[in-house]
Formats: sequence, C-alpha cells, structure tokens
Amino acid sequence: MTLPPEFDLITRYFKPLSGDGSFSLSDDAAVFMPPAGQEMVMAADALVEGVHFLPTDPPATLGRKLLRVNLSDLAAMGGAPFGYLMTLSLPRIDHAWMAAFVVGLATDQKAFGMRLLGGDTTGTTGPVVLSLTIIGTMPPGQAVRRSTARPGDSLWVTGSIGDSALGLSVLTGRVSAPEDVRAFLTGRYHLPRPRLMKIAGVASAAMDVSDGFVQDLGHLCRESGCVAVVDVDRIPLSRAARSLADQFADQPAFLEQVLTGGDDYELLLAVPPEREIMLSAAARQAGVSLTRIGRFYPGAPAVDIRRADGTSLEFGRGGWSHFQ
Amino acid sequence: MTLPPEFDLITRYFKPLSGDGSFSLSDDAAVFMPPAGQEMVMAADALVEGVHFLPTDPPATLGRKLLRVNLSDLAAMGGAPFGYLMTLSLPRIDHAWMAAFVVGLATDQKAFGMRLLGGDTTGTTGPVVLSLTIIGTMPPGQAVRRSTARPGDSLWVTGSIGDSALGLSVLTGRVSAPEDVRAFLTGRYHLPRPRLMKIAGVASAAMDVSDGFVQDLGHLCRESGCVAVVDVDRIPLSRAARSLADQFADQPAFLEQVLTGGDDYELLLAVPPEREIMLSAAARQAGVSLTRIGRFYPGAPAVDIRRADGTSLEFGRGGWSHFQ
Repeated sequence: MTLPPEFDLITRYFKPLSGDGSFSLSDDAAVFMPPAGQEMVMAADALVEGVHFLPTDPPATLGRKLLRVNLSDLAAMGGAPFGYLMTLSLPRIDHAWMAAFVVGLATDQKAFGMRLLGGDTTGTTGPVVLSLTIIGTMPPGQAVRRSTARPGDSLWVTGSIGDSALGLSVLTGRVSAPEDVRAFLTGRYHLPRPRLMKIAGVASAAMDVSDGFVQDLGHLCRESGCVAVVDVDRIPLSRAARSLADQFADQPAFLEQVLTGGDDYELLLAVPPEREIMLSAAARQAGVSLTRIGRFYPGAPAVDIRRADGTSLEFGRGGWSHFQ
Repeated sequence: MTLPPEFDLITRYFKPLSGDGSFSLSDDAAVFMPPAGQEMVMAADALVEGVHFLPTDPPATLGRKLLRVNLSDLAAMGGAPFGYLMTLSLPRIDHAWMAAFVVGLATDQKAFGMRLLGGDTTGTTGPVVLSLTIIGTMPPGQAVRRSTARPGDSLWVTGSIGDSALGLSVLTGRVSAPEDVRAFLTGRYHLPRPRLMKIAGVASAAMDVSDGFVQDLGHLCRESGCVAVVDVDRIPLSRAARSLADQFADQPAFLEQVLTGGDDYELLLAVPPEREIMLSAAARQAGVSLTRIGRFYPGAPAVDIRRADGTSLEFGRGGWSHFQ
C-alpha cells in the first residue's frame, strides 16, 4: 500500500524540524514535560496569502515571518521561545516552495531556540493559509500585560515604525524607491524582527505593534485606562521611510500610511522613570534600538499624537482591519 | 476612534469562551502555570470548507467538530483535555454563523472541561479555514504511542467504522437513506465522539482513525513493525451503515467506502491479552463500546483484512489524501 503524499511531506520537510517531545511527528500528539517552575506562554496567529503576504513573496522568508509574528507576541509578554505547532492549508504541493519554506523555518527555529512539536497539512481550494501556535515559557507572575500602564510612565517604542507598510507599498507599486531603499523596506516587510528582550520587571506594560501604531497604542490605552500623548517628531522613522514621504499627497497622508499601516512587529513599552536605566540596559543587551516618544496621563483612554506646534494629528483609521 | 470589527468579534463571541490564563483574550498571549507534575500533550488539526466540511454543514456542529477532531488526538495518546487556541480565516463576518459556531464551542468546551486560551481571526479570499491547537495533560511517561504494538496483542476498535464517510455520501447525494438512517449517519459526520477513556497503562499502542481505517491501521503497523490480521466480519458497522450496502456495486465496493472513507475518530488499540479485563473496565467507565477485531503478528508491516473464507481483501486506496 502506498502512502499518501502528506506522509512524504512529513518525512522530507517537517521531521527535520521536529524536536524533543514531538515523536518525530509520527504520533497523534506531542508530549513533553514543561520546564519546572515556569509558566507557559501561548499565542496563535495565522497568515493568509493575498491578505498577510503576497503570492510573489519568497517562501524562504514566509516561514520565518510566520514564526516571527508569533514570536513578537511572546516578546510582548516577556516570554522566552520554547516550541511551536503549525497547520498549513495548501492548494497544491509545490516542492520548490516547500523546500524553501522549511529552510526558512529551520534557520529561524535554530536562531530562536525552538522546535516543531506538531501540526497538520491539508488541501484547500483557496489561498495558502498558514497558522502557527507558539509556545514560550517565563518565570511565574512576571508576564508584562497591556493593561498596566500608569500615568507618569514614559512611552517607548523599539526599532522604527512604518517600514513594513511602506515595503508593501513598494512591492505593490504604489510607491517607487531606489534599489537600496527598496531592499531595506521590503526586507522589513518580509522579515519582522521580534524584539525578544528582558522587559519583565522593567516595563509596566507592553504590546506589539502588528495592526498599526495608532490602533495598537489605542488598545494599550484602553486596557490601561490612560491617555498616551505622543510627540510625532519623536516617532522613530528610518531614513529609507523618510525618503519616500514626498510621494504622498502631503505630510499627514505620509504619516497616516506610516502610523496606521501595520506589520511593524515593534514593541510599545510603558516604563516608569525610575526603571529607564534598566530598560536601556535590556535593550543594549538585546541589540534593540529604543526611543522615548511620549508619556501616559490620566484621562479617558485616547491616543493623542501631537505636532511640534501643539496641535493633534487626526487619522481616518487607526490601523488594519480584515473586515472593513 | 472606532475599533475594527475583529474586536467586536472578540468581545461578543470569543471572550465568553476564554478562561484562566487567557487574560480574556485582551493581551498578546495567554500565560498559565501548567498542572504540577503533569506532562503537556499538544496537537493541531485544521478543517477547510469544501475539504473537511461542506459549506452547508451547520455552524452549530462545526465548532464542536473542530474541537472534537483534536480531542480525538488527545484521546489516542491517553491525555486529558486542558485548553485550546484557535485561528479562523473567514471570507466575511456572518453574525448568525458566528453565534451558532461559538454556541457549539461553548457546549463542548464545558462538556470536555476546556477553555479557550487565544487565537486570531483573519480575512481570506477563499474558503473558511479553521485551525485549532489542543492542549492536554497526562501523568509523566504514560503516553500511549503508535509504535509500541507487539505481536500477540489483540487489535480493538471503539464504536463503529464507516458511519461518517457514509453520512457524507448521504449529504452529497451519492447514496440515499430513510430519515432515521440519514439522521444517524450525518450526525456521525457532523459530530465525532472523541473516545476519551483510560488507555494509559492498558493499551500497548493506540491511534485514532481519521483518514481511513485501512490507512491508519497501516501507520500503526508500520510504526510498530508488525502485521495486523483483521477479521473483516468483526469490524463493527452500525445497523444504519449496513442498511446502505446494497446501494454499492458489490460488497467489496461497500467495504472500501466504509474502511477507507475516513473521518471516523474512533480509536485503534493494541492490547496484550492479560490487560483485556482492564480495557473492558475502562471502556465501560467511559461509556464506549469496544470490539476485538484482530491480532498483531510478527512480520513486515502490513494490514491483512481477511474474509471468513481466509482470502484477503484488497483496496485501491487505504484512505483519504489531500493531494491525490
């Protein structure tokens, strides 16, 4: 009796990614003893072809992006990577695609110290759908929540904002860019950098920016019951991003793209003034750049993005929605 | 600033399903302390509209099916339910569909003692794709593998085989059935029954039948390095299933449908003779019917399904494949 192609996929592509507890993906489920004295941290995000990635995006970065968008959720809680499960829904088996996809996964799971624990490969009549559940660990009671920012905390953000959304605009031809700018911005779109740094015991609140800076900061404010006042000129934009500003109708249109475009996978951090030295040390240790961009105040939850003249920016939308 | 519809979905539909450790789904990840001294058991299965379920299948059973096909993987290891994460890719928001879907989930997560820990809802241009990662627990070192059946073990199967595949044939009009038979078989297709019973320390090997009895028993034989000889007349078929046999070209065509159709979510169990009394007690306690259908022998891995006259049945396929 010949085996169906799914088993060939497992043997060729997924078994090499599997680790302790996975039974080499040959059993019904993974079984493992969780690290003693640690809490488990878990999140699940899906990527859909044509929605989260382009059909032309390289498969070599796609697996890495899938892993990294989930690692970004771990990073936002202060967790450390442990393992993952993954389901793939594919319209056909394309061996070149599969091979590149798993090479990307192998690269990143090694870099981040993870292993594949299980999953499922199914057919579909529609676009590729990739779903990943990430498993991390952390010391008990140390999780950094969204709901615990306090008036007086400073607001910090890692890396730079807007590169990924601009990278997508370059890829879809809505803006044009010279080769070096294009390479940087599309690289940011294809390969998020999960900001795994020591935030437990440092930040009073954190979340990752995935759906748009304004919208996600709004969640943090709503959950924490605070106002965030942001100095727009302090929001870190890369030189590549700034170089494309003149292709937009005006500065507000550019800022709306940058601050609501999403896919940043940077961290928003609320940090009490007395812990800023600890924060700088943690960022330095992780090789992450950090910028203080504003402050939290008491008041009805809101995001107030201020220009140098004291006026506030208004946007038509806060971020990405799947259903609008 | 108005929130995008995803947040309304979370508040209305998913938050009521969330439990301890999920932070009411308002944070980046779930964080929980695993039960002391227990191993974690994890598996992930996806269901795709048009592949695993029909666009006309009732949403009220769809969430339950999604949970139950994953619970069946836990059952096959001997694990106990703990929680789950879920990603949904939906072409649009249909509130009637969503409401029915989550009522089904609520019913079953209560029945099986589980809670929603996290997930993601995305748009898609294609069919509905539902992916679920199930989390269970079990005492250390007790996992029941596929690879540990031994010559001399008896082969047992829970419930009955073929009902679900016949239910699908009824739904798609390939076979016809009187109302009571139709209700039973389509019920079996829409609502698998995960056979959560005490198999740890009882069965020497186990796996669940999801892709077809012949194919899945073949996996168990291959992983264990044994031959399974099955008495075809002992394979438990429901009265409803038997009543449709005369709509097939001949008895072998009927048996091929029943034994390779898949979606059974019954357990195959290898049990040493001296533990058969324990097995009966475990099945009785769980309210699960059990049938001894064959035996394992030494030899090159194979499934030998024998008629009463001693001849072997041959099938063109062993079970379901997504890519053939």
